[in-house]
Amino acid sequence: MYINKELHFGGVSLASLIKAKNYKTPFYLYDIEGMKNHLLNMKKTLGDRVSIHYAMKANSQKELLRNFSKLGVGVDTVSGGEIKRALSCGFQSHQIIFSGVGKSVEEIKLALRLGLHQINIESPQELVRVGELAKKIKTQARVAFRLNPDVDVQTHPYITTGFRENKFGMDFNTLPDLLEILKKYKNEVTCVGLTLHIGSQLMDLEALKEAIKKTLEVYKNLLGLGYRLETFDIGGGIGIKYKESELPPSLREYNQMINESFKDLDTQVIIEPGRYLVGPFGILVTQVEYIKKTSYKNFAIVNTGMHHLMRPSLYGAFHDIKPLLELEKEKELYDIVGPICESSDVLGRARYLPQIKQGDYLVVSDVGAYGYVMSNDYNLHAKPKEYLLSKN
Amino acid sequence: MYINKELHFGGVSLASLIKAKNYKTPFYLYDIEGMKNHLLNMKKTLGDRVSIHYAMKANSQKELLRNFSKLGVGVDTVSGGEIKRALSCGFQSHQIIFSGVGKSVEEIKLALRLGLHQINIESPQELVRVGELAKKIKTQARVAFRLNPDVDVQTHPYITTGFRENKFGMDFNTLPDLLEILKKYKNEVTCVGLTLHIGSQLMDLEALKEAIKKTLEVYKNLLGLGYRLETFDIGGGIGIKYKESELPPSLREYNQMINESFKDLDTQVIIEPGRYLVGPFGILVTQVEYIKKTSYKNFAIVNTGMHHLMRPSLYGAFHDIKPLLELEKEKELYDIVGPICESSDVLGRARYLPQIKQGDYLVVSDVGAYGYVMSNDYNLHAKPKEYLLSKN
Repeated sequence: MYINKELHFGGVSLASLIKAKNYKTPFYLYDIEGMKNHLLNMKKTLGDRVSIHYAMKANSQKELLRNFSKLGVGVDTVSGGEIKRALSCGFQSHQIIFSGVGKSVEEIKLALRLGLHQINIESPQELVRVGELAKKIKTQARVAFRLNPDVDVQTHPYITTGFRENKFGMDFNTLPDLLEILKKYKNEVTCVGLTLHIGSQLMDLEALKEAIKKTLEVYKNLLGLGYRLETFDIGGGIGIKYKESELPPSLREYNQMINESFKDLDTQVIIEPGRYLVGPFGILVTQVEYIKKTSYKNFAIVNTGMHHLMRPSLYGAFHDIKPLLELEKEKELYDIVGPICESSDVLGRARYLPQIKQGDYLVVSDVGAYGYVMSNDYNLHAKPKEYLLSKN
Repeated sequence: MYINKELHFGGVSLASLIKAKNYKTPFYLYDIEGMKNHLLNMKKTLGDRVSIHYAMKANSQKELLRNFSKLGVGVDTVSGGEIKRALSCGFQSHQIIFSGVGKSVEEIKLALRLGLHQINIESPQELVRVGELAKKIKTQARVAFRLNPDVDVQTHPYITTGFRENKFGMDFNTLPDLLEILKKYKNEVTCVGLTLHIGSQLMDLEALKEAIKKTLEVYKNLLGLGYRLETFDIGGGIGIKYKESELPPSLREYNQMINESFKDLDTQVIIEPGRYLVGPFGILVTQVEYIKKTSYKNFAIVNTGMHHLMRPSLYGAFHDIKPLLELEKEKELYDIVGPICESSDVLGRARYLPQIKQGDYLVVSDVGAYGYVMSNDYNLHAKPKEYLLSKN
């Protein structure tokens, strides 16, 4: 947002901030206060029956985790590395859910020794492994079965996880196998719930609602069979607004959907939001190294790229890109590209921007989720810095 | 290659090697001897007029660089980080070429202070920056202009760099501007040659031949105008065989193309091979965490994925995947997928493999180039280890 022609982020003029702090580009900047307020607002709106577990794969910056850990929420992890970082940043074992399709023996041992809140099981073989390891180290595991309600999701195929074609979750017809395995490990493994996650960046709650409805039938059947289920984990996936034209669901709609879905069931509802909590509260600030005009195109070659922000190259994802100052210059069409020796190193194609020049700052928006966590040092360029916004 | 039913790499049985060394998966394994022999063979075939500069962005593993530096070849770098690593691994300043579209002020200063062999210029603004910095630090720059002969390349759009649509190189009509800038910095900048690079993984030399021919006309014009050009840099890009069905150009054909192209010009020909020298001499060894059978598909979930090898997810690239032992089991169709929480985390789709089970080793082929260098620690999984093959 421009105020007095200066781009503001988290209420602060970026031009002033960069000058005051002498920040060198490229860098990520996170508005932790914004993230916290967003989380607190979600917590308040959804109420006590909904337990929020932040999906830290979206952004595992340590100070962010430390802040979230103080707000009475849990965390959703997908590796031993994430579990360890969550603990080191203040989360307690009983606040940690362990998800992911490829849990190794070492990772499961770690989870069992710590007595994590819940291990989300992705395959019968994984349930057997958990049972065997629990037996071996003489402990008990709390697990939830990740089921795949077969629902069509209208979103990008790469970030859709509920389909038959994907590696995630288990079809309903896997249940008899799972219950058989449970019986075998009845002293070691307790099934505490069911879990689902139908995809990321959902723009419509209908598919999620349908998925919950289908899975609730199974849930009730299991309760009827005497399984003492405590939790129903509906995953994450609420979309955010990357483009002006996008209209993601509101928190109010999300709350309403949850209330309606669970109106006749007294269970703890778990959600695992990631992008929703942090995505809009991160920016990537870069500077133009060169303007290169060809007969066909203008390129703004900047000092960040696919090595720092993979989403545009990997998914064709859109991120808004704005100059630091609202210049009243004629607009021109630019491809914003990085320094990496790959044609795919593009941050934004065909963007209308006021004429920009060498040295100008550009701000890439909504990179608080799945930005830095996917960065690398390809071409032996250093990884970007990460700064936290402070208002004084 | 299987010998006595055991998969061999660089003449060594991988099963025996893993047992003897107690290697833990996932790991990259490089056959440095194979790479060296391949390089020496190329050097011998192409003869003295061709100067080989290894494109280290393909694989910048230090021991590999140390070995190459002893074989009398140069190196092609694309960042200050690569320049520093090349120097630390035994390359001399005069053996280093500096390429890339986004060279920063700091990187150019470094290149100038070191007196690198050649800076490949990608835009008029870059030439100005080089001139200004050379003036400032009172030194001289040796530059080559990277030109874009407008040739159609039949290869993947993402790894094609010679098109109008891409950020690389300069159209021929940029030349008057460049010569004007050269005049301004005549005491600081010497143009020593022209350079081109039409794309990676070329399966046909015709496009490259045409590109050289078009650029040679410009080269001769410049010689006629009195510019003392010494080098003609034809880039890299020779394809390798990822699939059995692929037929990349042979070294003999490549040599012949160079000889024919430069038969009436006495100049140093520079080439910048990367993938060709190292690609086939690296493997990624992984183990199956889980076999997951659904009504629609079999998944082999392994302990490596897109965070360690980005090419399949990013480009849809094909890498052969083989079991360690040649098992006479019925074959089944598998998707080989990783542990990352992304649907795009796939190493190989629909592969016919002898029935595999939990714990089995799988070997991903031809990952010596653009493998480890693009890896990251997404999901806070550790980066893979890198080992060098030793034969005793």
